Amino acid sequence: MPSTVAPLSRDPRVLFGRRVATLRKARGLSQEQLALESGLARSYLGGVERGQRNIALLNIVRLAEALECPPSELLKFSTERG
Amino acid sequence: MPSTVAPLSRDPRVLFGRRVATLRKARGLSQEQLALESGLARSYLGGVERGQRNIALLNIVRLAEALECPPSELLKFSTERG
Repeated sequence: MPSTVAPLSRDPRVLFGRRVATLRKARGLSQEQLALESGLARSYLGGVERGQRNIALLNIVRLAEALECPPSELLKFSTERG
Repeated sequence: MPSTVAPLSRDPRVLFGRRVATLRKARGLSQEQLALESGLARSYLGGVERGQRNIALLNIVRLAEALECPPSELLKFSTERG
């Protein structure tokens, strides 16, 4: 029986992408809307949420501003080693 | 009379660099030591601390691990407008 829980990952890109998607949905925003608000291309934002992008500081801050949260909120995930 | 307080900046690269330097010194580490611990080149780390680098997520996480703090700690600075 397949699990409905997302598999564990320690890849910061994956964890970051999930965090962005969670915060975006909590605010009722579509990817398109968040892309517009943050000034990032929608395709780039899609890649970020899928954990395929090693997003840099200035874009992290742009996303945080569009999500109206402190930049540190976007990095609230654990990458602790076992 | 020149102020001894660092000038205000809203550039996230500058704020991030100061945050790294503060946490590094609080742990009694030299740039050389932190560079070795994190696997980043010392010259790159120097550029980060001077606010000259738009550091990306994977390197932010490497620095956080070397500083033994959550990645979110490194982004605890305010970039609020006005």
